[in-house]
Amino acid sequence: MKNLLVDKIYNAVGADALVVTQTDLAFYLTGFESSFGVLIADGDGSTFLTDARYLEAAKSRVRSGIAVEEYPRGESLASLLKKYSTIGISLSKSTASEYLALKNAGYEIIDCTPAFERAMAVKSPEELNSIKAACIAADSAFTALLPRIKEGMSENDVAALLEYLMRQYGASGTSFSTICAFGANASVPHHETDNTRLKFGDIVLIDFGCKVGGYCSDCTRTFLFGDDGKHGEFKQAYERVLTAHMLVKEKFKAGMTGREGDAIARDYLKTYGLDKYFTHSLGHGIGINIHEAPNLSPKSEQIFEDGMVFSDEPGVYFEGKFGIRIEDTVTLEGGKVVSLTDSGKSLKIL
Amino acid sequence: MKNLLVDKIYNAVGADALVVTQTDLAFYLTGFESSFGVLIADGDGSTFLTDARYLEAAKSRVRSGIAVEEYPRGESLASLLKKYSTIGISLSKSTASEYLALKNAGYEIIDCTPAFERAMAVKSPEELNSIKAACIAADSAFTALLPRIKEGMSENDVAALLEYLMRQYGASGTSFSTICAFGANASVPHHETDNTRLKFGDIVLIDFGCKVGGYCSDCTRTFLFGDDGKHGEFKQAYERVLTAHMLVKEKFKAGMTGREGDAIARDYLKTYGLDKYFTHSLGHGIGINIHEAPNLSPKSEQIFEDGMVFSDEPGVYFEGKFGIRIEDTVTLEGGKVVSLTDSGKSLKIL
Repeated sequence: MKNLLVDKIYNAVGADALVVTQTDLAFYLTGFESSFGVLIADGDGSTFLTDARYLEAAKSRVRSGIAVEEYPRGESLASLLKKYSTIGISLSKSTASEYLALKNAGYEIIDCTPAFERAMAVKSPEELNSIKAACIAADSAFTALLPRIKEGMSENDVAALLEYLMRQYGASGTSFSTICAFGANASVPHHETDNTRLKFGDIVLIDFGCKVGGYCSDCTRTFLFGDDGKHGEFKQAYERVLTAHMLVKEKFKAGMTGREGDAIARDYLKTYGLDKYFTHSLGHGIGINIHEAPNLSPKSEQIFEDGMVFSDEPGVYFEGKFGIRIEDTVTLEGGKVVSLTDSGKSLKIL
Repeated sequence: MKNLLVDKIYNAVGADALVVTQTDLAFYLTGFESSFGVLIADGDGSTFLTDARYLEAAKSRVRSGIAVEEYPRGESLASLLKKYSTIGISLSKSTASEYLALKNAGYEIIDCTPAFERAMAVKSPEELNSIKAACIAADSAFTALLPRIKEGMSENDVAALLEYLMRQYGASGTSFSTICAFGANASVPHHETDNTRLKFGDIVLIDFGCKVGGYCSDCTRTFLFGDDGKHGEFKQAYERVLTAHMLVKEKFKAGMTGREGDAIARDYLKTYGLDKYFTHSLGHGIGINIHEAPNLSPKSEQIFEDGMVFSDEPGVYFEGKFGIRIEDTVTLEGGKVVSLTDSGKSLKIL
């Protein structure tokens, strides 16, 4: 049996066999998610091997053109590949043990990572639909969350409620652990959500995402829980981060590199001396994984094109004082940036 | 600076330097969780290197005896290790790319996996407390869930509510995506929770776990949503799976192997011809990761000892008809099995 997508990757790799053991890469090819499975493809076709826990489900749900069989119990992967000489595996996703088992059995190894990264970076219409659905679920949940945020709730309470609402709006789960930070906690870019209680006048930063159909959304909003009149510096910085975020949407185009995209936000913040507080990259690719190719960073020479999905997330962090990050999941369509998460970004004061 | 736990692993590995890049292993040593960080230990002490996103938090929370520094931007890991010849890394957790980068730079590589597995399998009192807290949160949430399960709810609704309740009871998140299966869906051991609606008389299987302090719980319950009088075969099988589960608790002792533990349940089910429907292992280690050493499987020669934490989860699956799994997180204490998850296991009919 033949499957077009498997064939495309197989041909790009150029090994006798393409061997995929990673959950995310196997899901990309088969459309079926499981914690154990091996896809083996060669010029004649491809077979997905899994165990008894998944066999029944795999047979009904793996994409057409891919055979499904039970993995022969107790057999090593190396022993299943005897008719091949060169094997394509992902060096950046396979473990060193997996690599050494094949290498020591005499196989020549070719890295299939570039072929997967190139293919996965540009989303098919079906993949885009899943990401859009995840973005809509996250937006809807966030909108429903805002009026339910009350003084005295903990960061954990707010995160739990948002995650519950995302599932209510159709998500199968989160794409990462929700980051919810109150007050000075927001100055830690990846704050670990804790039991800090919400007080009047607090800055609130929430970084959240969910999955629909196996694909991720990613969004961050920063707002005020009441205005105690002490937030002049925060409000000024907020406007500048928002402008940096919007400038990327306006000026970044297909054909530009990740470095050029990152520079749009970084150069603007620099004019206000804020670039030294922008301590991370502008964005990352989003798909089956919450972080994947392509990147928007000062070193990224990747050229962006239509159908790529990534985050636009400038942020500034003043240690011990406050932090601001404004993030949307976006895509390139007709050469231009289109936002997929869409809840309001002008400064909210609850 | 010196840290006893880091020293213990370092000495067991026997390389010039121990280098840990994996989130779970670094958390085990430092007590601090981050998506990027490298711990480098040698005979003089250890340093945790991380980036700007985590530096502030790491300085205040990494365990005493471990220095914290910013990872030098743009430097390869290989270039930071020049004063060493042999490097200990985990071959089963490092990627092939990470391995090859060090190997090609001329370092001799020693696998530190066995040292970590041995150390991590036996929990410290502090680790046990986190696991117990996760088990209590999960038990409490499940007890609060039962009266809220109503006809017409979807599997996703029930899973979302349970996950919300676990966070309300103190969990920081789930230890895996909650499996909720109604009716014949329960015959798929790892059913992907979907929008199937609950009907009177349905079998309900829920496999759920949460994290507290970075440590996991794991529990499965199977019950009936009303009794339509058609479940004689199910009820009989349920009693046999429950007996298999309880026999393990009664007969499994410190000093026995994982194979012997698995056989207690498998041999009992065999006397009723049910062993062929018991299509997975009896159990797995539980800690920072939801699946870790040691295993209870037909091939496991690992010897169990006090302080180990693992699942006792016999199950039977009748394709297209029904499935049953009864699982507790347990530990060995004074040579005997003690249950850490504790909600009732006699057949519930809601």
